[in-house]
Amino acid sequence: MIKTIILKNRPQGKPTVSNFEFITEDTQLTINEGEILLEAVYVSVDPYLRGRMSDATSYVPPFELNKPVQSGVVAKVIASKNSHFKEGDFVSGMLSWKTQQVSTGEGLLKVDASKAPLSTYLGVLGMTGLTAYLGLNEIGKPKAGETIVVSGAAGAVGSVVGQIAKILGLNVIGIAGTDEKIEMLKTKFGFDAGINYNTSKDIQADIKKLAANGVDIYFDNVGGPISDAVLYNINQFARIIICGAISTYNSKETPKSMSVQPFLVKKSALMQGFIVSNYAKKFPEAMKQLSSWLAEDKLTYSETIVNGFDNIPNAFIDLFEGKNKGKMIVKI
Amino acid sequence: MIKTIILKNRPQGKPTVSNFEFITEDTQLTINEGEILLEAVYVSVDPYLRGRMSDATSYVPPFELNKPVQSGVVAKVIASKNSHFKEGDFVSGMLSWKTQQVSTGEGLLKVDASKAPLSTYLGVLGMTGLTAYLGLNEIGKPKAGETIVVSGAAGAVGSVVGQIAKILGLNVIGIAGTDEKIEMLKTKFGFDAGINYNTSKDIQADIKKLAANGVDIYFDNVGGPISDAVLYNINQFARIIICGAISTYNSKETPKSMSVQPFLVKKSALMQGFIVSNYAKKFPEAMKQLSSWLAEDKLTYSETIVNGFDNIPNAFIDLFEGKNKGKMIVKI
Repeated sequence: MIKTIILKNRPQGKPTVSNFEFITEDTQLTINEGEILLEAVYVSVDPYLRGRMSDATSYVPPFELNKPVQSGVVAKVIASKNSHFKEGDFVSGMLSWKTQQVSTGEGLLKVDASKAPLSTYLGVLGMTGLTAYLGLNEIGKPKAGETIVVSGAAGAVGSVVGQIAKILGLNVIGIAGTDEKIEMLKTKFGFDAGINYNTSKDIQADIKKLAANGVDIYFDNVGGPISDAVLYNINQFARIIICGAISTYNSKETPKSMSVQPFLVKKSALMQGFIVSNYAKKFPEAMKQLSSWLAEDKLTYSETIVNGFDNIPNAFIDLFEGKNKGKMIVKI
Repeated sequence: MIKTIILKNRPQGKPTVSNFEFITEDTQLTINEGEILLEAVYVSVDPYLRGRMSDATSYVPPFELNKPVQSGVVAKVIASKNSHFKEGDFVSGMLSWKTQQVSTGEGLLKVDASKAPLSTYLGVLGMTGLTAYLGLNEIGKPKAGETIVVSGAAGAVGSVVGQIAKILGLNVIGIAGTDEKIEMLKTKFGFDAGINYNTSKDIQADIKKLAANGVDIYFDNVGGPISDAVLYNINQFARIIICGAISTYNSKETPKSMSVQPFLVKKSALMQGFIVSNYAKKFPEAMKQLSSWLAEDKLTYSETIVNGFDNIPNAFIDLFEGKNKGKMIVKI
């Protein structure tokens, strides 16, 4: 019995379960020479997938209707006719939302269950960790003593960004949406301070108070009014990494906000969109550093694990309600 | 008789003549050891001065009320007790709006009237030329065959940007506000195409038509809706130089526009504020290149020369009506 989740229709605004359809096939998959048979173990759900569900061209092509949705998946090799993989191996890569699938192995990375929990290959040792590390270093160019603000700080990427910034000697301020998340930022991830955007009376003033010397780096996962509040506090030569804009992903109209241009001129500041796949050459170096920090307990992580293949769509939808702490992963 | 223009009160919205006051003193200036006496010859009026007339802190401190306004000035040395300067020399630098003034010579550059017309030291061989050259090269990183859009293209900076981009082998599209300016862009400055934003029915569509392969570089002097229209047409890895935002300088409220962040993420694009004074180390190299292009007739320029010290405030105000073609200069 093989289950598949296809994109039935494109979300208008916030995604709903009706955008997806489950297909169950009572069949046995077979493999040809050079192929492997995979069983999904962990499936990653990520905000950026929302973009691929629209039909607008983006940096990755949109998902096709009535075809399986794809995301980062850790899978177990349950049969192999490919000399690079053997039964029992675990792999990580972009795969379909299917309980079982056939692959040539192309683009898949073997991962080692003895070195780190398998789910981390979708999180701190996967795309989210690489995004945090490379976005911060390649665009942010952090220097010890500087101040960084991270939005979506309790999320998968944000929580890693904050920890790396602390390792590098920065003053780290996180913005998140509940007191529980703020507490976690400070106690678990070592942020210097946190702002709850849902209860803050004046985010701009709170940032000013916490960033006494101004903001040198802003790692932006959210966009919208939170980002406007940060802009008022940037220093000369500030670097703003636009990693995501979750606050705008479900907008039906082109979102409006404060004009950023006058702020960028006034402060000679830089704002740059970051897409991790453009930095593939630096993945080995980044993975090595992240693994070593993880082994030394300098880096910790948070996961929200949802159980069951059938819950993938709901887990994805919950991302937009901020229901996850850290990386949202579905265990099959 | 010495005339001075002081800032009487700060403009609210668009500047008016009532923001300035003329002071006439029937006096003779004297100089001490190490000083020089200067007579203004050409005074530059520039959009960025509007920022210094507000009391908000910017990258340069605001002008003080009841003190002379300052801008780029070419002056003649009419008396000298400083061995670096002799009577009859011409100098260029940041000086007060005064018919005569005393200086120590600090920060002044000697300019050569035999090499180029004196007014060019405020334009193509002055800050505007340096802004065009360094903004385009340092942030834009132009490559032959790419497409650039320049807003405020008929202005002092824009017209030089377009010409340099042509020299470097780019496809150059200019945006300006009258058919006469568009004609000048194409015939005088060698732009490949122009868009009149006042008569275009759909700027976004016009850019799309003219930039068949998309926009790689956007040199932005204006901000506002024109910039939004360009953003819809940027390519992956586009570079956007925010040199000015004249459309917002007179806003009484924080200007709103389309959120740029989603565009920057989608295209891995960069947007950076440019202030020429941060690149002072590169001035000699840039000046050398600009002078040589000018001497070889590869570079031409346009000036709007207004006559008379008394007309400085009006010339400044006219900038915001787009009444200048190229560099706006007042001849004393």
